[in-house]
Amino acid sequence: MTDLPSGTPTVAVVGAGQLARMMQPPAVALGIQLRVLASSADDCAAQVIPDVIVDEVSAASLARLADGADALTVEHEHVDSQWLAELAERGVAVHPSGPALHAARDKAVLRRRLADLGLPQPRWQVVADAEDCTRFGAGVGWPFVLKPSRGGYDGRGVHVVANAAEARELLSRPLPGGAVWLAEEFVGFHREVAAQVARSSQGQVVAYPLVRTFQRDGMCAEVVAPCPDSGEDLAAAASQLAIRLAVELDVVGMLAVEMYVVRDPDDEVERLLVNEIAMRPHNSGHWSIDGATTSQFENHLRAVLNLPLGDPSPKAPFTVMVNVIGGEAEDLHYALLHCQAREPQAKIHIYGKRVRAGRKVGHVTLLGDSVEHLLARARHIAGYLRGDIHE
Amino acid sequence: MTDLPSGTPTVAVVGAGQLARMMQPPAVALGIQLRVLASSADDCAAQVIPDVIVDEVSAASLARLADGADALTVEHEHVDSQWLAELAERGVAVHPSGPALHAARDKAVLRRRLADLGLPQPRWQVVADAEDCTRFGAGVGWPFVLKPSRGGYDGRGVHVVANAAEARELLSRPLPGGAVWLAEEFVGFHREVAAQVARSSQGQVVAYPLVRTFQRDGMCAEVVAPCPDSGEDLAAAASQLAIRLAVELDVVGMLAVEMYVVRDPDDEVERLLVNEIAMRPHNSGHWSIDGATTSQFENHLRAVLNLPLGDPSPKAPFTVMVNVIGGEAEDLHYALLHCQAREPQAKIHIYGKRVRAGRKVGHVTLLGDSVEHLLARARHIAGYLRGDIHE
Repeated sequence: MTDLPSGTPTVAVVGAGQLARMMQPPAVALGIQLRVLASSADDCAAQVIPDVIVDEVSAASLARLADGADALTVEHEHVDSQWLAELAERGVAVHPSGPALHAARDKAVLRRRLADLGLPQPRWQVVADAEDCTRFGAGVGWPFVLKPSRGGYDGRGVHVVANAAEARELLSRPLPGGAVWLAEEFVGFHREVAAQVARSSQGQVVAYPLVRTFQRDGMCAEVVAPCPDSGEDLAAAASQLAIRLAVELDVVGMLAVEMYVVRDPDDEVERLLVNEIAMRPHNSGHWSIDGATTSQFENHLRAVLNLPLGDPSPKAPFTVMVNVIGGEAEDLHYALLHCQAREPQAKIHIYGKRVRAGRKVGHVTLLGDSVEHLLARARHIAGYLRGDIHE
Repeated sequence: MTDLPSGTPTVAVVGAGQLARMMQPPAVALGIQLRVLASSADDCAAQVIPDVIVDEVSAASLARLADGADALTVEHEHVDSQWLAELAERGVAVHPSGPALHAARDKAVLRRRLADLGLPQPRWQVVADAEDCTRFGAGVGWPFVLKPSRGGYDGRGVHVVANAAEARELLSRPLPGGAVWLAEEFVGFHREVAAQVARSSQGQVVAYPLVRTFQRDGMCAEVVAPCPDSGEDLAAAASQLAIRLAVELDVVGMLAVEMYVVRDPDDEVERLLVNEIAMRPHNSGHWSIDGATTSQFENHLRAVLNLPLGDPSPKAPFTVMVNVIGGEAEDLHYALLHCQAREPQAKIHIYGKRVRAGRKVGHVTLLGDSVEHLLARARHIAGYLRGDIHE
């Protein structure tokens, strides 16, 4: 191992995908060493971080990962909370903690916590069989959402069921370990927004501006920061909700709260409903790498090391982020010749992941004044990179 | 070796200090793999880049470094131009080329090129003995500057001699290999500025705004971008000079031109005199990491890969950069608790180098409107980090 200057902190990260990869630039700047637990030496964070442990996630690999590290964090929620709790008992600074992460890992646990806290969410129920579904549908109306409480991401595992037969068919499928079936009211006409906060272990909190998110195929596709079509009241309410949740769940690191904005026909004002949460840097915050004074990745590292948090303010009136989803083109770099010549101001991010259809392989960020103009330009670049556009 | 997505470019870098280290964040973003030639596994770029060759710079190690790389570049000028020329003959894309780098490596070569091009510089002469010095001093006046044409950096090797006896004493010292003694007119009252351009191998050029630099002990200490006290004419002239030099010397990558701004007593207008040049990212451009849309490190990588160049425009009215020079404090990270709490907007960069007195170990950047206010804040952070300030 290299001999590091005195005081150099090490942050251990469970997972070596693009979220761990995007922690490396602020770690390099702040003199923080990262160590990642990768499932393969080809993982995209393992390509750019020297200190890599290639192993499955287990109590043993987590202990190796944590050995000598100043903090241990995660880039995904699929980690046994008990293992994290055991590490914490042995003195490892685990952020988020096992109990906190439990609510991000299991959507039924989250729903219960939100209910206990009186925070707004769609009507929901844990269901065991078709009879439960029939009763739930009679209450909230058909169709409704049915999903395993654990194991999904980017919309995987989420189904909209139209009747008891469809629900019965779904319930016959195997559940991921520890999961239950969760039924949720289908929220119709709505917009989607995300509130992000960073919270350090001594309890300092900073809030990023509320952003609007656009989903496609259940996956975050585009983000506009700040949310261009919400009043100050809604933005403030969303921030307050995210801060309250970070405090109540004792989150340390980044917390993203994805919410629906709904307006009932007889309502004057818009209401927020919590959809999902993530206790880590999140796709809805990628805009902050180029668009905020301190990115979500830098503040995540600062939070888990209990360093004072950086300014989350936006640098421009608007920042747009468009994901590059794997498509026709296998070689994303060839397209840079066109994209960078056309848009010298664009910040193009390529994750080092092999292109597969539907896989997030990069993103494009642009800063400026006009949301529609920025989106059109960023979509062109993303489309060209994925091979949809050839001129 | 890891199995990378198709099209992933590799850039090989001679040297693994802070300049190579600061190439890693934009490389991570753009999906570019770096490979560095380090003198030790502890070198600060080797801490954050997986692909490291630990070896002395030699024809053999350069060949290993270049093997399979899409481009080879340097973070310092101390590389034999002949070795680089041989790599280029074998088809390696070496940027800057051996012949171009020769002018950055040997100040006497640079002086001759500048003279041939009719570009403004202090009066100079290659001197062999005390008699040469006496004649030169009789022409330009005493004191004057005497330095080896090669091998120095951060002001090392540069002497101001007041008389023939001092010159004679200096000339008795050994010269670095291939160097000659260079005598230069002492430029008295002046300001110092630096112009930076990026030039790609197909000849695209972008110019960064002219910056003002403040030296201390012969070393760059502070930078203000753009230069706050120069007219548009001077800034334009400096950019034109840097672009001309990049073209004439066939520079590919970043070129920094350090210049004096002087005004003779009987002159109305200010004049530029070229002091030194660097064909790589340079301390005078560190502000651009946080202060420009595209940093010098990103544009250096784009230039050597012949990708279209990014926008060098500043993001704020002013950006100040203050170097952290090694002082009392061995542990720079402990000071972050104070510095980050006091200045949430500051971008603090810690290079991962062991602290030694007078060594560049980091820098601090702040963006805003008031140069004096920004400098005062950045100096406080830099002073606290180096251990000069304790409150």
